[in-house]
Amino acid sequence: MTHPLDLTADVVALTRALVDLPSESGREAELADAVEAALRALPHLTVERVGDSVVACTGLGRAERALIAGHLDTVPAAGNLPSRLADGRVHGLGACDMKGGVAVALRLAAGIPEPVRDVTYVFYECEEVEGDRNGLARIGAEHPALLADAGLAILMEPSDAGVEAGCQGILTADIMVGGARAHTARAWQGVNAAHKAARVLQRLDDHMPERVVIDGLEYREGLSAVAVRAGVAGNVVPDECVVTVNFRFAPSRSAEEAEAYVRGLFPEYEVRVAEVVPGASPHLDRIGGLVRALGAEPRAKLGWTDVARFAALGVPALNYGPGDPSLAHTAGEYVPVEHLERCESRLRAWLS
Amino acid sequence: MTHPLDLTADVVALTRALVDLPSESGREAELADAVEAALRALPHLTVERVGDSVVACTGLGRAERALIAGHLDTVPAAGNLPSRLADGRVHGLGACDMKGGVAVALRLAAGIPEPVRDVTYVFYECEEVEGDRNGLARIGAEHPALLADAGLAILMEPSDAGVEAGCQGILTADIMVGGARAHTARAWQGVNAAHKAARVLQRLDDHMPERVVIDGLEYREGLSAVAVRAGVAGNVVPDECVVTVNFRFAPSRSAEEAEAYVRGLFPEYEVRVAEVVPGASPHLDRIGGLVRALGAEPRAKLGWTDVARFAALGVPALNYGPGDPSLAHTAGEYVPVEHLERCESRLRAWLS
Repeated sequence: MTHPLDLTADVVALTRALVDLPSESGREAELADAVEAALRALPHLTVERVGDSVVACTGLGRAERALIAGHLDTVPAAGNLPSRLADGRVHGLGACDMKGGVAVALRLAAGIPEPVRDVTYVFYECEEVEGDRNGLARIGAEHPALLADAGLAILMEPSDAGVEAGCQGILTADIMVGGARAHTARAWQGVNAAHKAARVLQRLDDHMPERVVIDGLEYREGLSAVAVRAGVAGNVVPDECVVTVNFRFAPSRSAEEAEAYVRGLFPEYEVRVAEVVPGASPHLDRIGGLVRALGAEPRAKLGWTDVARFAALGVPALNYGPGDPSLAHTAGEYVPVEHLERCESRLRAWLS
Repeated sequence: MTHPLDLTADVVALTRALVDLPSESGREAELADAVEAALRALPHLTVERVGDSVVACTGLGRAERALIAGHLDTVPAAGNLPSRLADGRVHGLGACDMKGGVAVALRLAAGIPEPVRDVTYVFYECEEVEGDRNGLARIGAEHPALLADAGLAILMEPSDAGVEAGCQGILTADIMVGGARAHTARAWQGVNAAHKAARVLQRLDDHMPERVVIDGLEYREGLSAVAVRAGVAGNVVPDECVVTVNFRFAPSRSAEEAEAYVRGLFPEYEVRVAEVVPGASPHLDRIGGLVRALGAEPRAKLGWTDVARFAALGVPALNYGPGDPSLAHTAGEYVPVEHLERCESRLRAWLS
């Protein structure tokens, strides 16, 4: 153990220690070792290791169990190591996304041996990469009971220390526009699929996304072409143009409904759906007490986050963590000390 | 000299011998050696070697000089070697494009020691690849007098043994459609360049190409999108969409006029012109005697060929050669024996 973690250090020092222990996706082992060792040293927690994810549970027999989760991995470094404290902010790789949130959760795990509700802490690997490597998904698949007995979940993704409830779903599909090849010297002998794609792109430009209100929160949808590909050779009329669309849909739509919606917009084209992941409803009816305790006006989460994985398990979840989400994955990311302290104190109050 | 060429063999045997001497672009040396050796053995010709191109001239002091040209190279083999004679056709790599035409020209060079008009025969390298490797272009640049003193030129590209006069020009340009990036979860914060490209593609679809009649021949223009490229990442509203257009324009337009025409169609976009090569006017007024001697109704050539290089030197030129041009570059290419014999006898009559 070359880097023992001191969970009694203040949240700023702990955030910096976590930043200074690099853990790019797929290389979280050393950090997971350090987290596991620190938590195993605490007699009030039962600790399990799943790959390079660590799960720690209190077992006080409380009527309610909350789950607090954060991912250990970061995107690759961008000249932003080691950590640096300046202007009331911790700077450095992962400070915002999301070692600040992990530090808060580790402080709670270590510092509250007898919370008023049981807590399952989950520190997981590979959130920043393909979904099939996601540590939370792996725990859900291999040890579903570790997640499913929670009554609610708090995902400590950066949310400006505010409450972001639920999340939107994502559909990705290719709209196939066909034509007929010809030599461009005799273009009239073919049908130019790129020209014909104008109708698809114009329809996307004209499309008015819906604004869906759930539990008083507005989920604003979006349907975007994210790629257009056509081209056979410089002297050939292309016989295919592929328009890839990305649909961000409100959690009121199921995956099937989202797919039917997109197909219905392009009934005369072949639509190849590559991926649909449903969103998560805010469930303010079930997490209202927590939201009130956190003292923040809830907002709709528009991006997709792992709260949807909890939703799929029937566990209502929200995003609540320190840091500005728009700084995530930027070389200049940082987390304000004030956010770290506020998140810790609000959650500490709710658990004590 | 491992493969001596017998120029006294009949045109079918000579075509097969040429096909059986592979000469993919850049690898014409062995064939150029054989052609050079065979022509140097003929006392009525003065022979020059330029790279792997061979030029042979009669010097009879005739009032008129004609140029007869064919390229030695082929596209890569496609399981279509060695040559095969079946159903009155010579099959095999390059049979159509254009060793049949080269065989005809070699037969004329060897068999007509005292033509009624002087002749410059040009057998050149690298027609099937980038223009800056083209053997005819190299001769024109390094030895312009070898080409420019001809009063007309016959390019023996496959033309179904018919006369194709002049050729159209080619312009290639990128039309740049701009936007502003955003995360697709907040698509309304950006401007989707792919959506905005609908206007460009619709304008191309609506465009009515012109049909230009010159010397009674119709040059039908074409303006085609040959590629569309947009895409930053699966969750990003793209800020750029590039539509690559290919404009085939009648020889009545200069390169500058063709460029101005395309820019005029898209005045509100940045248009990046990558290449403009002008076409060649048919000049039936200057080659009418040849056309009549060949006994074929002239047609407009819609594809670009090296006749445009002659046009740029002030030499009127036409395409006249055995073989169906639509078979060029196909694995199943062949040349009809009847085409070989007709082209040879018509040209022989014109030169005798």
